[in-house]
Amino acid sequence: MLSGAAADPDLIPFYPLLYVAWADGELTAEEAAALRARAERAGIDPDALSVWLDPETPPDPEQLLELLAIVRQRAPELSAVERSSLASLGIALAEAEGKAPTDAAREAVRRAEAALGLHASEAVASMLDAGRPVADLPEIEPRFDLDRMRRFLDGETVEIKDRLRALLDDGRFELVHGLSTTEYRAKVLEWCRALADEGLGALAYPVEHGGGGDPAGFVATFEMLAFVDLSMLVKFGVQFGLFGGSIHQLGSREHHERYLRAAGTLELPGCFAMTETGHGSNVYDIETTAVYDPEPREIEIHTPSPRARKDYIGNAALHGRLATVFAQLRVSGEDHGVHAILVPIRDADGSPAPGVHIEDCGEKLGLNGIDNGRLAFDHVRVPRENLLDRFAWINDDGLYRSPIASPAKRFFTMLGTLVGGRVAVGSAALSATKVALTIATRYGERRRQFGPAGEPERPLLDYQSHQRRLLPRLATTYALNFALHDLQMQYVAEDEDRRKTEAAAAGLKAYATWHATRTIQVCREACGGQGYLSVNRFAGLKTDTDVFTTFEGDNTVLLQLVAKDLLTGFRQQFGDTGGFGIARFIADRAANAVLDRNPIISRKTDPGHLRDAEFHRAMFEDRMNDLVYSLARRVRARIEDGMSSFDALVECQNHALTAALASVEHDILASILRAETDTPSSGVAEQLDRIRCLFALTTIERHRAWYLEEGYLDPPKTKAIRRQVTELCAEIRPQAVPLVDAFGVPASALRGTIAE
Amino acid sequence: MLSGAAADPDLIPFYPLLYVAWADGELTAEEAAALRARAERAGIDPDALSVWLDPETPPDPEQLLELLAIVRQRAPELSAVERSSLASLGIALAEAEGKAPTDAAREAVRRAEAALGLHASEAVASMLDAGRPVADLPEIEPRFDLDRMRRFLDGETVEIKDRLRALLDDGRFELVHGLSTTEYRAKVLEWCRALADEGLGALAYPVEHGGGGDPAGFVATFEMLAFVDLSMLVKFGVQFGLFGGSIHQLGSREHHERYLRAAGTLELPGCFAMTETGHGSNVYDIETTAVYDPEPREIEIHTPSPRARKDYIGNAALHGRLATVFAQLRVSGEDHGVHAILVPIRDADGSPAPGVHIEDCGEKLGLNGIDNGRLAFDHVRVPRENLLDRFAWINDDGLYRSPIASPAKRFFTMLGTLVGGRVAVGSAALSATKVALTIATRYGERRRQFGPAGEPERPLLDYQSHQRRLLPRLATTYALNFALHDLQMQYVAEDEDRRKTEAAAAGLKAYATWHATRTIQVCREACGGQGYLSVNRFAGLKTDTDVFTTFEGDNTVLLQLVAKDLLTGFRQQFGDTGGFGIARFIADRAANAVLDRNPIISRKTDPGHLRDAEFHRAMFEDRMNDLVYSLARRVRARIEDGMSSFDALVECQNHALTAALASVEHDILASILRAETDTPSSGVAEQLDRIRCLFALTTIERHRAWYLEEGYLDPPKTKAIRRQVTELCAEIRPQAVPLVDAFGVPASALRGTIAE
Repeated sequence: MLSGAAADPDLIPFYPLLYVAWADGELTAEEAAALRARAERAGIDPDALSVWLDPETPPDPEQLLELLAIVRQRAPELSAVERSSLASLGIALAEAEGKAPTDAAREAVRRAEAALGLHASEAVASMLDAGRPVADLPEIEPRFDLDRMRRFLDGETVEIKDRLRALLDDGRFELVHGLSTTEYRAKVLEWCRALADEGLGALAYPVEHGGGGDPAGFVATFEMLAFVDLSMLVKFGVQFGLFGGSIHQLGSREHHERYLRAAGTLELPGCFAMTETGHGSNVYDIETTAVYDPEPREIEIHTPSPRARKDYIGNAALHGRLATVFAQLRVSGEDHGVHAILVPIRDADGSPAPGVHIEDCGEKLGLNGIDNGRLAFDHVRVPRENLLDRFAWINDDGLYRSPIASPAKRFFTMLGTLVGGRVAVGSAALSATKVALTIATRYGERRRQFGPAGEPERPLLDYQSHQRRLLPRLATTYALNFALHDLQMQYVAEDEDRRKTEAAAAGLKAYATWHATRTIQVCREACGGQGYLSVNRFAGLKTDTDVFTTFEGDNTVLLQLVAKDLLTGFRQQFGDTGGFGIARFIADRAANAVLDRNPIISRKTDPGHLRDAEFHRAMFEDRMNDLVYSLARRVRARIEDGMSSFDALVECQNHALTAALASVEHDILASILRAETDTPSSGVAEQLDRIRCLFALTTIERHRAWYLEEGYLDPPKTKAIRRQVTELCAEIRPQAVPLVDAFGVPASALRGTIAE
Repeated sequence: MLSGAAADPDLIPFYPLLYVAWADGELTAEEAAALRARAERAGIDPDALSVWLDPETPPDPEQLLELLAIVRQRAPELSAVERSSLASLGIALAEAEGKAPTDAAREAVRRAEAALGLHASEAVASMLDAGRPVADLPEIEPRFDLDRMRRFLDGETVEIKDRLRALLDDGRFELVHGLSTTEYRAKVLEWCRALADEGLGALAYPVEHGGGGDPAGFVATFEMLAFVDLSMLVKFGVQFGLFGGSIHQLGSREHHERYLRAAGTLELPGCFAMTETGHGSNVYDIETTAVYDPEPREIEIHTPSPRARKDYIGNAALHGRLATVFAQLRVSGEDHGVHAILVPIRDADGSPAPGVHIEDCGEKLGLNGIDNGRLAFDHVRVPRENLLDRFAWINDDGLYRSPIASPAKRFFTMLGTLVGGRVAVGSAALSATKVALTIATRYGERRRQFGPAGEPERPLLDYQSHQRRLLPRLATTYALNFALHDLQMQYVAEDEDRRKTEAAAAGLKAYATWHATRTIQVCREACGGQGYLSVNRFAGLKTDTDVFTTFEGDNTVLLQLVAKDLLTGFRQQFGDTGGFGIARFIADRAANAVLDRNPIISRKTDPGHLRDAEFHRAMFEDRMNDLVYSLARRVRARIEDGMSSFDALVECQNHALTAALASVEHDILASILRAETDTPSSGVAEQLDRIRCLFALTTIERHRAWYLEEGYLDPPKTKAIRRQVTELCAEIRPQAVPLVDAFGVPASALRGTIAE
């Protein structure tokens, strides 16, 4: 411990504060006074403190180093929570020395830290770290209006996004690494309450029920939360999007009046209990039963087998009180398929409701801030009114009624209302991708490695292989930004063709989440060992986003929906029987194809042609159309040979997935091309043009085997495309940092990382 | 709590044991007697117990259910450690009820559990889980001798592998999920001690220093440990492979005598301090200095800047006492490049040595069982004898002496001794891949989803897309098994060409670790949400193996070494000046190429041809040769134009990486073909033939754009190859489970997972 006047044990909790306050040599008289006032109120001897607090006679450097050594020596034993602020660090330090501070002293040091206006995690990092060992990021002059680019990427929801940037940066949403699962779950709940208090939870609900009437703003909120912490995002989504959203979308006026306000404020934490252990993507065949008993007008919810328990339900293990439970509804002995029913699962003091069995799913790869649980129901009874009855109800005579006659159509109508989840997950995945690219690109600019003998080492981004790893993914991220934005607008505009929106949401969700998984991995590798440290965020980004590829619909299953939709579109165009229409169409296609594939076009290799938007559009469109038509032919041929349509599709499954992805890529290109017609400045336009070229040409390059096989390209042209990609990377490289900065990732999301 | 006679609070710690003992209705008289004896010795009233322990009058089912309910109700509040055995569960339960057991009672319940011979984690799982909700795995009759296949895959080290299977399954190496970092680090140290006690740590050291003289066995141990816990594997590798190995490989007799025994028993925990914050892969330019002072014959180790601190050093944050420090050696004012010096970093009671600053790297994405740290040296002095002096020393006159004149050559000779690390990491990555494939394949057989209307759902493995995801990776894993085995033998046989071994180790390390990262991801996705739960192991496998792609040499950097080696081979073949030799060779190549690419061969599409080993060999060889020759031409052309060789290589970097990967794939194919000539039975041969075909054809398929561009294949043939791949998947699918079972993953590594 310190010698002399400073050795007062009451001072120990203040050590970290004192060190940081002095370390930059800037303790002002006001700050000193504030510190002294807090300490004295806690009964600390003013003399002991004064030696530390006189701006005129600062403590000598040896004393400060002694302070630092004491703190650093203890720090490794402390938990992440204890290291989360200077005050908690000091309190833990005193406890470790056997001098547990009084409650007043604890309060005093906390208030003193607040009074100094220090940034908690930054200050702790500066105290505990030996200094930033990487080179400073060089100033890079943007060659375009960065702020206009950011607003352009933000799109129509730029205002709420800016509001959220400020909110997420106000100190309440600081990331803490190394929390235990229990602490992390509590933290995430606290964050969600803070968001609800800001009115963000209820943003999409009708104004008359305390909502904001702003579904676009709700999705934009999702996009922004994903920059910071994905457990917070998913908990927010479960409570306000899935649970509250199911009441909003599947319920009627009475349900809205009774529950929506409480759901939106988080007074009533809830669950969305759809998935069953034995039934993941196949919701149609879930087994939980809901049998109507006309006598007391109740519905009895029951889990008939272990396979039928509700599994992976967010909010279930700890916090949820009411659950939207999906079950097979049976009325007067007749099955009516899957319906949603509100079932209380816990009382106000947290005990499970009678007949409800709750289990904790335990540790997961990521998203451990969410309390996923399993629910099983043992003949649990709820009143008839708990059926969410927008699309079907039980009348006073105990008869089942629905305006939608076909059970299959009713099922898909109900599920269709959940398309918002997929829109949101795709958007969130893209935000996580943006964080990863921002960190890796900024690090690639500052980190130097190797170089010609006798010269300084070179920034990683100067290396061709490094550019090739990061920049095509940057370009795809830009393109996806516009595609997801188009999808959000399409989703919000309710008059649009729902089927089209559902297919687009399914396809983009799959594409964006896979893009996220792969890009985060590439970025993590591009940062070497630094990428592996939790503080640099890839750890959380990787493990948290990983499940995005399977939840809200498994990607492979979703792409099959897209393929089915493409086949449906194909059938609608040519009639169910095919016949003459198709034959003529195929003849037309063949003629077109000959035209497309004529040697002059397939061999043109000049850069002007290779960077031409029309060339890109044609290549993407031909690929999509060809794959869909050949898929339709192959499926039809099998059905005509007597195969069931299920088996016919299974036999063509890989083909179907390829066709679906081609149609998603086609739509993404269309979105960035549409955006290009609307750029706010020529600087922005110049960048976007290059980015679209890189997206289009790397996509074509990835599929070049197919283009070669089908005769759209010949080898000299595919090689010319490869050279163009390399050149585009070199052209984009000098502006790489401004281009990621334009994503507008909030500062709090990068604090303490190698990107800072 | 229980009513009646069972309500004795002293009995609470025994509840879990009693439940499990009775739950299968098989408590024998001997077991009952053992339990009673332990309990009485702890002062527990025999009457209270007898109601539970009479095999003639078992407790009634209601009482057992009551016990179960009590335990389950409390379980969610308990930590992973408390849930790790029935005894600790019982003790925690009693504590939670405010009836903390006496020390004697604690000891008694622990001994009672041991006496019952229950498998701890299994028993807890059976008690706490509501029952296995997935369908049982159907019995699948292997169509080959599974045990012979396993022994064939194990290769020459089958005996030590079988010994390790038994060891890892003896109960001491049970996986525990959800430990805190502190607990996990302690657990891993305990595991490493247990392995050292078995003589496994010193396996590679000379017999005269307490070693086993068995480097092949040491690598085999690595392969086996990777099945279970990768933090244990890496800590084991740091201590015995890197730290002890550096003394063994870089030191001389005196160092061996003084340190090797203590390193091998883990009496002397150590570090391998090579990487610096500012210098990852570029070890040649590290900055730590080692200046020889002739007066007291000491070497002064110093960290001149934050970029020069040793970073990411395993064993440094907590346990290491001695470190092999790599530093720039300066003797009599002259620089001699990087050398290794032994530096004490902690004294026996764990305090940092004077002048040594130690920091904890903190939380990482994975491998949190290892205490990575940062080391900085402030003019730390060690005696001259601490220089590891096999390749260079300072003589009594204070003069630097080395039999290797060139500093660069000396550097690569020293680093070359570390090739074992890359061999081991590649092998470990493959073991992790095998675990992932075993779990995903077994789950794919038992998990059912969708199906034709009105029929039962189908196993996931019946779906084409599922087969396409898993089975080509299964085939590559088999092929890599033989390639890594060949590499291990080449590494152990010291008379082999070292340069060849180093290049092979670099290439296979890169290939195997990327294969691991991607395969584990695919497997995790193939198991949907189940794959996301920690208990099913993908979480740990993913996060732990992730850094394999960057440590022991970043994969991208390693592949550049491979490419340089290929260029060197090329130069050696044709002389440094190129000239006539090359010109003639290229002419020959061109003639060959015309032959290879003649239309008949490039268009042959019959299955016999497509599955022919000679076709595969030729395709892999042509690709490798073509890429190397064109790379050499491109680099040479740039150098002739006056570019530095550094810049010339940077401009051809992507080409170089492609050529390097092609040569690695070529060698992998050669290994499985060699294995096929040596199969132990016709059943095994039949499987291997199909597996090699799938590996070869999916590799060709992945590169088909290149083959099309270069004219080796034409579109009808690439399409025929695609069809063959689909057919091969369908042929292998029925035997998929026996084929993964032949990997011989220890039972403990699968316990409690969806694969069980």
